Amino acid sequence: MSDTNNDSMGRGTQGTKMSKHHKKLTASAIKGAIQLGIGYVVGNLNSKPDRDVLMQDFSVVESVFLPNEGSNLTPAHHFPDFRLKSYAPLAFRYFRELFGIKPDDYLYSICNEPLIELSNPGASSSWFYLTSDDEFIIKTVQHKEAEFLQKLLPGYYMNLNQNPRTLLPKFYGLYCIQCSGFTIRVVVMNNILPRAMKMHYKYDLKGSSYKRCASRKERAKSSPTFKDLDFKDMHEGLNLDSETYNALMKTLQRDCRVLESFKIMDYSLLLGIHVLDHKPLSRESRCDSRKGQKVLYSTALESIQGSMKDPEPLGDDDTFGGIPAKYKDENLLIFLGIIDILQSYR
Amino acid sequence: MSDTNNDSMGRGTQGTKMSKHHKKLTASAIKGAIQLGIGYVVGNLNSKPDRDVLMQDFSVVESVFLPNEGSNLTPAHHFPDFRLKSYAPLAFRYFRELFGIKPDDYLYSICNEPLIELSNPGASSSWFYLTSDDEFIIKTVQHKEAEFLQKLLPGYYMNLNQNPRTLLPKFYGLYCIQCSGFTIRVVVMNNILPRAMKMHYKYDLKGSSYKRCASRKERAKSSPTFKDLDFKDMHEGLNLDSETYNALMKTLQRDCRVLESFKIMDYSLLLGIHVLDHKPLSRESRCDSRKGQKVLYSTALESIQGSMKDPEPLGDDDTFGGIPAKYKDENLLIFLGIIDILQSYR
Repeated sequence: MSDTNNDSMGRGTQGTKMSKHHKKLTASAIKGAIQLGIGYVVGNLNSKPDRDVLMQDFSVVESVFLPNEGSNLTPAHHFPDFRLKSYAPLAFRYFRELFGIKPDDYLYSICNEPLIELSNPGASSSWFYLTSDDEFIIKTVQHKEAEFLQKLLPGYYMNLNQNPRTLLPKFYGLYCIQCSGFTIRVVVMNNILPRAMKMHYKYDLKGSSYKRCASRKERAKSSPTFKDLDFKDMHEGLNLDSETYNALMKTLQRDCRVLESFKIMDYSLLLGIHVLDHKPLSRESRCDSRKGQKVLYSTALESIQGSMKDPEPLGDDDTFGGIPAKYKDENLLIFLGIIDILQSYR
Repeated sequence: MSDTNNDSMGRGTQGTKMSKHHKKLTASAIKGAIQLGIGYVVGNLNSKPDRDVLMQDFSVVESVFLPNEGSNLTPAHHFPDFRLKSYAPLAFRYFRELFGIKPDDYLYSICNEPLIELSNPGASSSWFYLTSDDEFIIKTVQHKEAEFLQKLLPGYYMNLNQNPRTLLPKFYGLYCIQCSGFTIRVVVMNNILPRAMKMHYKYDLKGSSYKRCASRKERAKSSPTFKDLDFKDMHEGLNLDSETYNALMKTLQRDCRVLESFKIMDYSLLLGIHVLDHKPLSRESRCDSRKGQKVLYSTALESIQGSMKDPEPLGDDDTFGGIPAKYKDENLLIFLGIIDILQSYR
């Protein structure tokens, strides 16, 4: 029921019609198939013996068909028949281990709790789902992006080994779901902006000033994502204490060197700002996220502490790992990460 | 004076005449040029800032010309003008760091103490030099082998990261010296058989019985290298305690999986046997090796202890990291490592 082949990304036959179908099916079948499919392959992986990751593992694609009525190996389900492809499963298992994600917790986060659909914060046509515990983002990616990620994996492995503390996206899985004539590919990543912490401002920064203003439509949203020129207008800049500033700069330089080495150009820095002086959130109003699993180096503060001592656990519960900053007289917590790295200009 | 280019292995124009020239020059110019050249590039590397290793670093070749009369950057010397190429210098620096080799110690071992010329233990036409402190072997390699090693580096990096304890060769540097019309390429590796410990038996094992007898010429040597059929005749087998046996088997399986993944077939297990019950060496008769630098995971015992606790430092001085074994009533120390992995059948 499961076959393994190399280097095939399984281009969908009706890829162009995807988004239309996708919209129609989002609420139920897609979410369900993602959860069921990932649950099946990750659960299956648990039974495989742990062994070293080899170069070839990066190009492996495992494929399984999950018919509606079930089979010897797969459960019956209420969605149309679908096929799930799991890319480089052993490599991604290694990455999850590197970040202390236990297989059962990964399964639980993705499969046993409802996924939350997010509105798209960026310009891409991607769909985003967030796990209830705030840990993982499931994002749809284009065929080309999935292909690029797979090519990136050996270099990405090197980077993670040398820098588990990084602001680059952390990729925990890459999957493809083929269902009644359409194909979607999803990547499971770390979540940069914890839902439990209200972001009073959100920026997508590219370090460019050309057309970098949020559209009128974006501004009308309840939680708009602003851009570079808006940041200049609204915040001018932020103040960090010198140790934090140096750690942040060092991390960004290191991360950008990796991106440059792969000729990746069109990425952004996603920046969320929580203003501490605003009326604090009552304990009750916070969701119960971050209670269970806690991925290593997943918060903004942990991501930049290469040369700094570990943060005192004290108070982490209240800051959700945000980095203390100031703007004029306001005390802030900032949350940030590099996003949209899967488009290479080559 | 130094230029960097990618993917060029610098094939020598008169490569076929190399061994003849080489023989003539061995004692003086070649050894001197190796020491001077490696000294120059490793010393130069010290001044470069430490940064992460990127995928591209594996294919870098740095080249420097060292004229006899010296230059602004290079010292004068007594050998003919020569050019030194250093392959993937940042990657090899990373490997050396991984094994706790300090740059100054590496330089000192290779450059400041005389190199010892070894007789060739295998079938290849390679030349071997050993550093005075017993730590490093400098081996000449064919153009194809050097090219293969460079291609192997990303996968090799992955393996070292996951298993610093391995019986695979540890590569610490790859260089090419071009001098008055001939080219030699050398790789710096760990030394498996410490000179300070007399090997009463030496085997090159391939797990094959076809023509695996040492030649009459080999047997006539003072310290011959025997083969599989000789091992069956002379030792039948060796006894290890079960914990050591399991650790050794696990390491060999893991290492062979890596070799298999690269389609490497023609490697050997080099096995040195020291018989403890023989008249022990007097302290005086031992050379003063292993006094200074001590490379991590470099001894046979350290190489196989993946799941075992670290060996007690006690007694290590007397065993040189050999693995305790028995043959009939004799107490042995065995020394072993996988060699000759740079020939791929592809």
